[in-house]
Amino acid sequence: MQSALFVGRFQPFHLGHLDVVKKILEKNERVIIVIGSAEKNFLPDNPFTAGERFQLIDEALKEAEIPAEKYCIIPVRNVNNYALWVNHINCYVPPYTHLFTGSKIVKACYEGKYTEIIQLKRVLKISATKVREAILKNKGWEKLVPPAVARLLKTWNAQTRLRDIKETMDYTKYNNEY
Amino acid sequence: MQSALFVGRFQPFHLGHLDVVKKILEKNERVIIVIGSAEKNFLPDNPFTAGERFQLIDEALKEAEIPAEKYCIIPVRNVNNYALWVNHINCYVPPYTHLFTGSKIVKACYEGKYTEIIQLKRVLKISATKVREAILKNKGWEKLVPPAVARLLKTWNAQTRLRDIKETMDYTKYNNEY
Amino acid sequence: MQSALFVGRFQPFHLGHLDVVKKILEKNERVIIVIGSAEKNFLPDNPFTAGERFQLIDEALKEAEIPAEKYCIIPVRNVNNYALWVNHINCYVPPYTHLFTGSKIVKACYEGKYTEIIQLKRVLKISATKVREAILKNKGWEKLVPPAVARLLKTWNAQTRLRDIKETMDYTKYNNEY
Amino acid sequence: MQSALFVGRFQPFHLGHLDVVKKILEKNERVIIVIGSAEKNFLPDNPFTAGERFQLIDEALKEAEIPAEKYCIIPVRNVNNYALWVNHINCYVPPYTHLFTGSKIVKACYEGKYTEIIQLKRVLKISATKVREAILKNKGWEKLVPPAVARLLKTWNAQTRLRDIKETMDYTKYNNEY
Amino acid sequence: MQSALFVGRFQPFHLGHLDVVKKILEKNERVIIVIGSAEKNFLPDNPFTAGERFQLIDEALKEAEIPAEKYCIIPVRNVNNYALWVNHINCYVPPYTHLFTGSKIVKACYEGKYTEIIQLKRVLKISATKVREAILKNKGWEKLVPPAVARLLKTWNAQTRLRDIKETMDYTKYNNEY
Amino acid sequence: MQSALFVGRFQPFHLGHLDVVKKILEKNERVIIVIGSAEKNFLPDNPFTAGERFQLIDEALKEAEIPAEKYCIIPVRNVNNYALWVNHINCYVPPYTHLFTGSKIVKACYEGKYTEIIQLKRVLKISATKVREAILKNKGWEKLVPPAVARLLKTWNAQTRLRDIKETMDYTKYNNEY
Repeated sequence: MQSALFVGRFQPFHLGHLDVVKKILEKNERVIIVIGSAEKNFLPDNPFTAGERFQLIDEALKEAEIPAEKYCIIPVRNVNNYALWVNHINCYVPPYTHLFTGSKIVKACYEGKYTEIIQLKRVLKISATKVREAILKNKGWEKLVPPAVARLLKTWNAQTRLRDIKETMDYTKYNNEY
Repeated sequence: MQSALFVGRFQPFHLGHLDVVKKILEKNERVIIVIGSAEKNFLPDNPFTAGERFQLIDEALKEAEIPAEKYCIIPVRNVNNYALWVNHINCYVPPYTHLFTGSKIVKACYEGKYTEIIQLKRVLKISATKVREAILKNKGWEKLVPPAVARLLKTWNAQTRLRDIKETMDYTKYNNEY
Repeated sequence: MQSALFVGRFQPFHLGHLDVVKKILEKNERVIIVIGSAEKNFLPDNPFTAGERFQLIDEALKEAEIPAEKYCIIPVRNVNNYALWVNHINCYVPPYTHLFTGSKIVKACYEGKYTEIIQLKRVLKISATKVREAILKNKGWEKLVPPAVARLLKTWNAQTRLRDIKETMDYTKYNNEY
Repeated sequence: MQSALFVGRFQPFHLGHLDVVKKILEKNERVIIVIGSAEKNFLPDNPFTAGERFQLIDEALKEAEIPAEKYCIIPVRNVNNYALWVNHINCYVPPYTHLFTGSKIVKACYEGKYTEIIQLKRVLKISATKVREAILKNKGWEKLVPPAVARLLKTWNAQTRLRDIKETMDYTKYNNEY
Repeated sequence: MQSALFVGRFQPFHLGHLDVVKKILEKNERVIIVIGSAEKNFLPDNPFTAGERFQLIDEALKEAEIPAEKYCIIPVRNVNNYALWVNHINCYVPPYTHLFTGSKIVKACYEGKYTEIIQLKRVLKISATKVREAILKNKGWEKLVPPAVARLLKTWNAQTRLRDIKETMDYTKYNNEY
Repeated sequence: MQSALFVGRFQPFHLGHLDVVKKILEKNERVIIVIGSAEKNFLPDNPFTAGERFQLIDEALKEAEIPAEKYCIIPVRNVNNYALWVNHINCYVPPYTHLFTGSKIVKACYEGKYTEIIQLKRVLKISATKVREAILKNKGWEKLVPPAVARLLKTWNAQTRLRDIKETMDYTKYNNEY
């Protein structure tokens, strides 16, 4: 089975990510979506838990009518060590034949290894950083993410969470609270 | 959606596990299968990586014609701290309404929490420990696991791996090698 | 017994902290003071060890004639994971009925849990960051902390330590020393 | 101030421990009680959390009418490295002048360091291992621990917890559950 | 340059190890000696620190008149993960062309990788486990190790250390001390 | 034997480092070179693995005709805890009588300990930070490092690696990739 690895932090999953998934599935039977930095949550750059990110991706793909057998979603914690990165990822995922990446260092780490690497070109110029900033201002973020993601983020009061995280970081910084 | 959590180490996935999955799906729309001790591999009690265990479960469920939308498989590393266990698991999985467990301490850890807990009764008296012992002797293990698992374990030369692990442990013990 | 949790890093314990402790004790029989980021020391934002911070708080409270049975001080290491934070703290402290916090995210983490949460309003506008900056310049810091803290910090040559830490960080940055 | 360090796991705190505390206080103004292996809980040898152990010790000492200013209780996680042990402990506790220990290796680790070390002789021949075994059988354990400890352990259904932990360990071993 | 990797825990370095080093140097320009489980010390199976083991090996090789340019000694901590083992080791050592190992699982981990693997045959039937047992009884251990190692171990009072470690373990087990 | 400790990250080893090594060897029989932050690699400030840094130092010293018995190179991971730093280092290295350091906090950590500390004065004003910046621009970096280092860095395509790392960091920052 031809399958491809797609690694991201998905904080949150947005239309750019969905677009990549669709492109990968045009040429692969399955996409293995790795949720990176899975151990991080409730932080400014990583507001959502791995479980929440799993749910966001899962419901967005269902909504996009991508059949369940065409993808799997696997949370993997960070190792902070690129020299071990390839092996670390390989401990957690089923075999794959292709790797989609936008990172040259990831590409370099795979050099000499069997997997075919495809340089990722993002057509939609959306970044999760911008999505988070838009959520924080509650301004125009819904059109950057799949409807299912927008719906879930509202249910979770994402704006409040992001604001609380921001306030806590500022408070911690200035008032020395834990 | 009514969904249930099923946690195991699945070293390897056997017919008893498959039976539990089927029973859970009689009353739930989805089973969330958590691969515990995901960081462990190439050890006597944990010979297979999380990625390999993912593949074993995934192919066994496909073979059993369980539709892909009815299950998801999530590797989670061990925390060695039951007091944090419930929260730790909840960081990595989508929401669930029911918990199936054979462990009274897991049950106790959930006490007072929203999830409905169902005491797991295993009909098939198969343990993974016995499966591993049978693989090591290459004697009668194929009938304890789903055919897809048997096929994969043969491809991976599971008997050789288990023997190598055992020999290495013995060698390490007696010869002080790393 | 009605008791309240008060979490801080206390780098160092200052008059603002003391004021909060006194306010908490007006309405509670005991305050459980958690020394957060207990594993950190000899760093610009965390110059003192948990043991030193224990001593600073302990002697300041004695000096303020707060009876020993009215407080306990418990160092707890950081978890970098707010989703586990409440459970992590609860593993290390005796039961408490109230939580005093200035952090909205901490408040959100406790949501739905039994503890009564009280939004902390600091009357004295002192931050430990400013105290550390004043120590570094040896300018006016003594009046920001309880006399017992001032006395101990002088005994420990706190200014020298903070300067050494700063110089080491700069040296490390520019000269690539370990 | 002459103060002494007393390190134990206190799983649970028993009359032998109480006896040592009293003996230490005959010659010292304060005893610093370190709860070792603070990160462990819900395990056969470490059934209680650090917070629970804090409460057991605290209430037993109050009951014994030992004034609160004569002791403090500090949970410290394990380092698994005796060569770092002394320094690790010293990061978490206020200064002490004496060390009470029954361990020759701890004594050796302190060699050449300022602290006076006193070989601990236990008069009461009670071990926490025996207390836990007695709790498991619910047979005669109450007379091995201070009344306050007995009362708390009953409130927490300690026998049930120890039995659940044991059953879970056995279950895990034989059924390969997480 | 043709160089070979030799991994061991060397608790302590004995004549069997020295014999392997000599055999490796018959066919290689340099041997890279990796001290495994470098983070462990003062434990029954790992009594010596990595620094002490470095010194034992270094002085034994000097005594055997093996030129310093023919070996290097590198301590590497354990990873408890054979699937990452090869990459982990490779992060810490200079390049090597040959690997000497007695472990089939290590051999399997290298499969498909460039390094030539040579099955290690030990002529001298000495194990470090037996050396430690002999030291503990102070009976005939000196003839199992190079003279330099014997001399250092005596200077360090190795018998006393091993006995203290054993007593501490027993004491901890029976008296519940930390 | 009079020997001295020299700790650095050596990202990469440059002429300033070589100069220090030579100065140390004027008055000491051996220099113990500790590669700090050994676990870090493929990061902007830590582009090379400990093994690569070992090789850079080793070949530079050979080229400078420093006899192999006059130095040893030991990678040690970071502890992020200065209060444990001295003990941590001492676990990994053979005994030393002198310490060369440019860091006042390291000096303070050793206070009261046996080792003689020598304040390091660097004559050559080269920092590894500047070397890395020069490599990135491929401009004039070769004259800042020993010829052997220059040769190896070229073989490894150091400029490409540093550029790839930088691009990956930027990409990760702006595109939220893992």
